[in-house]
Amino acid sequence: MKLDRPYSINEIAEIINAEYYGDTSIQILGLNEIHVVENGDITFVDHPKYYDKALKSNASVIIINQKVECPLNKLIILSDDPFRDYNFLTRKFKPFVPAKQMISETAKIGEGTIIQPGTFIGNNVKIGKNCIIHPNVTIYDNVIIGNNVIIHSGTVIGADAFYFKRRPEGYDKMHSCGNVIIEDDVEIGACCTIDRGVSGITKIGRGTKMNNHIQIGHDTIVGKNCLIASQVGVAGVVKIEDNVILWGQVGVQKDLTIGKGAIVLGQSGVPKSIEGGKVYFGSPVQEAKEKMKEIAFLKWFIKKEHN
Amino acid sequence: MKLDRPYSINEIAEIINAEYYGDTSIQILGLNEIHVVENGDITFVDHPKYYDKALKSNASVIIINQKVECPLNKLIILSDDPFRDYNFLTRKFKPFVPAKQMISETAKIGEGTIIQPGTFIGNNVKIGKNCIIHPNVTIYDNVIIGNNVIIHSGTVIGADAFYFKRRPEGYDKMHSCGNVIIEDDVEIGACCTIDRGVSGITKIGRGTKMNNHIQIGHDTIVGKNCLIASQVGVAGVVKIEDNVILWGQVGVQKDLTIGKGAIVLGQSGVPKSIEGGKVYFGSPVQEAKEKMKEIAFLKWFIKKEHN
Amino acid sequence: MKLDRPYSINEIAEIINAEYYGDTSIQILGLNEIHVVENGDITFVDHPKYYDKALKSNASVIIINQKVECPLNKLIILSDDPFRDYNFLTRKFKPFVPAKQMISETAKIGEGTIIQPGTFIGNNVKIGKNCIIHPNVTIYDNVIIGNNVIIHSGTVIGADAFYFKRRPEGYDKMHSCGNVIIEDDVEIGACCTIDRGVSGITKIGRGTKMNNHIQIGHDTIVGKNCLIASQVGVAGVVKIEDNVILWGQVGVQKDLTIGKGAIVLGQSGVPKSIEGGKVYFGSPVQEAKEKMKEIAFLKWFIKKEHN
Repeated sequence: MKLDRPYSINEIAEIINAEYYGDTSIQILGLNEIHVVENGDITFVDHPKYYDKALKSNASVIIINQKVECPLNKLIILSDDPFRDYNFLTRKFKPFVPAKQMISETAKIGEGTIIQPGTFIGNNVKIGKNCIIHPNVTIYDNVIIGNNVIIHSGTVIGADAFYFKRRPEGYDKMHSCGNVIIEDDVEIGACCTIDRGVSGITKIGRGTKMNNHIQIGHDTIVGKNCLIASQVGVAGVVKIEDNVILWGQVGVQKDLTIGKGAIVLGQSGVPKSIEGGKVYFGSPVQEAKEKMKEIAFLKWFIKKEHN
Repeated sequence: MKLDRPYSINEIAEIINAEYYGDTSIQILGLNEIHVVENGDITFVDHPKYYDKALKSNASVIIINQKVECPLNKLIILSDDPFRDYNFLTRKFKPFVPAKQMISETAKIGEGTIIQPGTFIGNNVKIGKNCIIHPNVTIYDNVIIGNNVIIHSGTVIGADAFYFKRRPEGYDKMHSCGNVIIEDDVEIGACCTIDRGVSGITKIGRGTKMNNHIQIGHDTIVGKNCLIASQVGVAGVVKIEDNVILWGQVGVQKDLTIGKGAIVLGQSGVPKSIEGGKVYFGSPVQEAKEKMKEIAFLKWFIKKEHN
Repeated sequence: MKLDRPYSINEIAEIINAEYYGDTSIQILGLNEIHVVENGDITFVDHPKYYDKALKSNASVIIINQKVECPLNKLIILSDDPFRDYNFLTRKFKPFVPAKQMISETAKIGEGTIIQPGTFIGNNVKIGKNCIIHPNVTIYDNVIIGNNVIIHSGTVIGADAFYFKRRPEGYDKMHSCGNVIIEDDVEIGACCTIDRGVSGITKIGRGTKMNNHIQIGHDTIVGKNCLIASQVGVAGVVKIEDNVILWGQVGVQKDLTIGKGAIVLGQSGVPKSIEGGKVYFGSPVQEAKEKMKEIAFLKWFIKKEHN
């Protein structure tokens, strides 16, 4: 998430009332989680296991819960609860703004695009040319949609990331300040959900076609010309490369890559990264031809032993 | 389901035109299925296998299809079709009332709660303080929602129980007169469905967080601070205790208990009750470490034998 | 799909500017894919593998990409891209017509039917008597619904078929000009999707009851008095015969038949046709009693060998 203008550390520290040290001349340009952080960004870290990663990242400002040496050209903000303070800042800079009407006045809708009745379009949404958005679709604030996109009824684009911190008293919600980008020529079926990035982007690549009841988690990037069948669930922070095919009811766990042109057969479960150009089956998946051989062998073996 | 005032057996018998005997002084306070029946309630039984259970239950009035001895302080209503007569009574006392507008005049909505456009709120719904109900949500009549609850778009709370009696000519629908209660601090993702109880309550406990496309069946009780990932399906009359975690696409069959703190890994199927405090995997589930060992052994064995 | 009146080959050839030969007196009555084609219809074929099937089918007119001998009483249209030309014709004769309001003026709604708020009803939809259509349902153009049908919130009837042709530059969408028919006494739960036929019909038979989050693909025929539990996914061109029961999260692949009275247990995957009157389990499915024996034997064997 980028800020509307550069901020000084004084301005930030006032908001969260925090102690800081390091290069106080830094211009603060954004807020981002560690895995998508860029130069000029604030990030946070609250576990010693990740201190080093955060301090060596592209982040210019690190909110941290222990006094550490400040790296060159960076700035440290000390906090007893970095998650709370980071969350407070993102809420402050990107608050939830209630809608005044079904289609926001601030939405920009391209020429030739048809918005059917009952569809909600949030603040600052951008939709390109010659799209059809069918009835009862929901597009949350700030979502960006390209040209020639078709979205079927009941689909929800840009709902919050499923991202919580466990506290002794219960789960603490991370405010989702990221976004969703749908590229040109994408078709999305009915009753799909594509969650926004936590602070980054969830993206559906050009020409990809999705059927119904599909879940795409936060910060997941789907490549170009993919085919995704009904009831597929993809968790957060997944990278699906171009020309991948996922058949019905496939489940994909978080934080992994599915290589270019891979085909995953129905009901399979993908627990870790898989190479492109191959066909997969099973839960957990393996190469389909291996899996089929195993199934056939086991059938033969059971018959032999059991009878 | 409770009635609006106590009724006499005369009033009830007139509605369904039935013969009755036993303690005719009983004040009738509600109607409930056998598994949630309370003192003062009418229940029904139409299979000899369950006669004894019904007669020994807390029900004050039993609609039954055979002349039996009436227990002390109870009342028997004779019927050639107890399902039909019980169903007729629940429809009579809790009829479906068509909505006049998108948000019912009889709904009570707490201070600070934001209702986004396109959201339907039925008759007598109660929503607490500081909730966000996103666009195009549907909340059926009588649903009760606590404070600080977030519900994302496309979600449907309080649709009818999936409960039918097989007749020679087809399925006969049981009228759903139960309800849904969502406690404080719950978050429900997009395109979820939480069905109402048949005559009792479906409940989501305080602090529980649910992702998208989740099905919660009628009369299921989800405990506090549970985490439920996308596309999980939980059937009816299930008890999920506190702090349970269900990962993506897990399926849970009806009428069982998942013990406190249990973790069920993605795509698993739970066909019977499982103890708390353990990690499970597979369809049908077993303890994850056992399942993993089995998978590894089979792989080794197949390799050895097959090559 | 049938046309509004008979067309001559001159009229058709002018639209797509094509060369033709054969029986030019043919009256053209409709457009249909090869698997549902009838006398008087135009169909298309673009792969030599299917030439013979198309030429011997009931079609009166075949759009084809190679000069072939024209069978008696038929007509050949030559095209360098039959998919493109067929698609062009279906779009021309059944274009997408944007809605003017939430309930189309051209929709016919029977006596006693209740349409709750937020529900979209497209052009030329027909709904019978005594139905309840709950809030925020979407019914696309031309869908036909019988009497005593209940449809719960969030459900989408008649969205486009998931049907694309792979081109070097990406997927080319087949225009869906088919329809959906819901027969009498059907109940459809919340957040279900029933896609329209590509050119034919998707049908839900009389008395069938469906729970929530169910996907029914294009041109699939579901028989009478079936029971379909939550999160079941059925692909396109499937035939489910009468009295079939599919339990939760079952997946059914395209182009197969499930025989009368078959019961498929939860989370099973059906990759090819299965006989009626039996109980099935597993992914891929086999008879449940066989599958259970296999699971038990493997457990015993692993225990014996592994310890």
